[in-house]
Amino acid sequence: CELLQLFTLHFMTFDSASTVPDLLSIFHEQEMTETVHETNGHGYLATFVGKNGRFVILRVHSHGLVTIDLQCYEEDNISQLDNLLNALETKLKALLNGNITRIKRLPALIRGAKVDRYWPTADGRLIEYDIDGVVYEEDSAYQNIKILHSQQFGNILVLNGDVNLAESDLAYTQAIMGSGKEDYAGKEVLILGGGDGGILAEVVKQKPKMITMVEISFIVIDGCKMHMRKTCGDILDNLKGDCYQVIEDCVPVLKKYVKEGRMFDYIINDLTAVPISTEPEEDSTWEFLRLILDLSIKVLHPSGKYFTQGNSVNLSEALTLYEEQLGKLSCPVDFSKEVVCVPSYLELWVFYTIWKK
Amino acid sequence: CELLQLFTLHFMTFDSASTVPDLLSIFHEQEMTETVHETNGHGYLATFVGKNGRFVILRVHSHGLVTIDLQCYEEDNISQLDNLLNALETKLKALLNGNITRIKRLPALIRGAKVDRYWPTADGRLIEYDIDGVVYEEDSAYQNIKILHSQQFGNILVLNGDVNLAESDLAYTQAIMGSGKEDYAGKEVLILGGGDGGILAEVVKQKPKMITMVEISFIVIDGCKMHMRKTCGDILDNLKGDCYQVIEDCVPVLKKYVKEGRMFDYIINDLTAVPISTEPEEDSTWEFLRLILDLSIKVLHPSGKYFTQGNSVNLSEALTLYEEQLGKLSCPVDFSKEVVCVPSYLELWVFYTIWKK
Repeated sequence: CELLQLFTLHFMTFDSASTVPDLLSIFHEQEMTETVHETNGHGYLATFVGKNGRFVILRVHSHGLVTIDLQCYEEDNISQLDNLLNALETKLKALLNGNITRIKRLPALIRGAKVDRYWPTADGRLIEYDIDGVVYEEDSAYQNIKILHSQQFGNILVLNGDVNLAESDLAYTQAIMGSGKEDYAGKEVLILGGGDGGILAEVVKQKPKMITMVEISFIVIDGCKMHMRKTCGDILDNLKGDCYQVIEDCVPVLKKYVKEGRMFDYIINDLTAVPISTEPEEDSTWEFLRLILDLSIKVLHPSGKYFTQGNSVNLSEALTLYEEQLGKLSCPVDFSKEVVCVPSYLELWVFYTIWKK
Repeated sequence: CELLQLFTLHFMTFDSASTVPDLLSIFHEQEMTETVHETNGHGYLATFVGKNGRFVILRVHSHGLVTIDLQCYEEDNISQLDNLLNALETKLKALLNGNITRIKRLPALIRGAKVDRYWPTADGRLIEYDIDGVVYEEDSAYQNIKILHSQQFGNILVLNGDVNLAESDLAYTQAIMGSGKEDYAGKEVLILGGGDGGILAEVVKQKPKMITMVEISFIVIDGCKMHMRKTCGDILDNLKGDCYQVIEDCVPVLKKYVKEGRMFDYIINDLTAVPISTEPEEDSTWEFLRLILDLSIKVLHPSGKYFTQGNSVNLSEALTLYEEQLGKLSCPVDFSKEVVCVPSYLELWVFYTIWKK
């Protein structure tokens, strides 16, 4: 499988660059075939096809922006390409006579690689991870489950394309357990989701009375117990222990507990982030979120606490909407929130603590 | 100033996509002018010029990779473009009859913006920050100094294009002070660099005997005292206080201290990261680093500690080389290291503690 690399280089200048023709000689020296395109007044646009599948797009825009995009294959001679980009940079500097306000060459964007390194943040920013391998991939009835290896973060669980948790992310587990301010000893604990086993492994250490973990997909558990051991240790090797049990399927279990009048001291909802859509009436994720919240609060002890993740701190609209939902529950609640740095997320994340008024 | 946005979309398929001509109709419907380029056997390559400066590059590579790059201006109709990309995606899915192993649409890459949001990591990955403004920019004799505003990280100090410290990064300051395991009360402290004032502000709280901070550029201090107040508080408002003084120029001061036989309990080197170049004999940054290290160790109390940042945990070659340098100092030393998550760095960072054997 071939890789296509895209190098982008851009210049900003005060000059309206009348100097373009002088750049062309560089491409001609490389024996590249030139096409000048008609743009109907949108600046100068030329493309150049070279050896080995090289392709360059040169645009000179009317307000002093010059962009050069160079596409090439992985097996191309990279030092030769560096020389080409350097030559272009040097020539443009000379031509524009120092009237340059910015020169920017970005790391190559790679398409077609076996391992995808681009996993945008929840707030939509382009991010390249240092991922060098896929260690696990399965499809469940609900989602695509990947575990990818990152040089710095260890293995990363990715669900439906969202970075969920890496082995480096104890900070996530600590935050969703109340940031070290809670005492789980002797308590009844309900974990919703949490298939990576991180929360279960940490709560067990505090000797609670009983932890019930309800995970919708045992395929996540299977993957994590093999490949996320820095997170879960050996806790997922058995789905039942002295003070914990892991059972399947979330909503029916919650409904049963409501009927039985069960009460929990701590409920930790690790199921899903606050949906980004700000149309709560139309989005099924919102519906699911409200259903879980309402059922959970019913089985929460009057002096208990409910912990959950929110979303990226930058998604203030979605977070506000979630907080509005909290005001509409059948049982009145209060909440506090905390902003936490989870290493592999590459964006700050909001966590909520909710309790009955 | 115009913005050029680049949307990239790629498909991987088992099929050697013979189905390209069927895609062309979509571009023709958009009244785009087509050019098919001769690639000498490197797959199919066509470009399309449309209204408003739109430009599309369609490549079908021989091993089943299809790439579509769409360039447009900021003022273009983005929902129309989304429709175009959606139409292409739908059509390719139908044409390839489910034989698709990956569909990936990346967030737009933006060139020509007033504020540059792309600041690659030390290990060379492409990263987009949530930067929405430049609050300070000056050139000193040594470097370009920028303070940029990030939605989530607060203001960020960027020196010569490297993200140095954000207001969110107390973790950096704590790590380079020894991660809370040291007691600075009554101690003699030397800070090398540290122009953002973070270390100074934190050490002062612990009531040391005297802190001497040696910063090469008072322009950094001027910017930070105005725009990094979550980091430095009001400590930089005065360059001399009860238990601290800030003086200019590092090497001559160190040389004078060596001559006078001065000794410090703590030396915190916040000057510069370990150089990435692995040619220590040829790189002037390495020379500077060795000079500072050697002078510093001479004024370090026999039971004192020297703290410094290393670099990205992924740059293992550069880090190993630095550790080799530590073995070659005129005075034998030992060291330990710690990996820390500094929120705004978007990569894990190594910090060193060094002491005399």
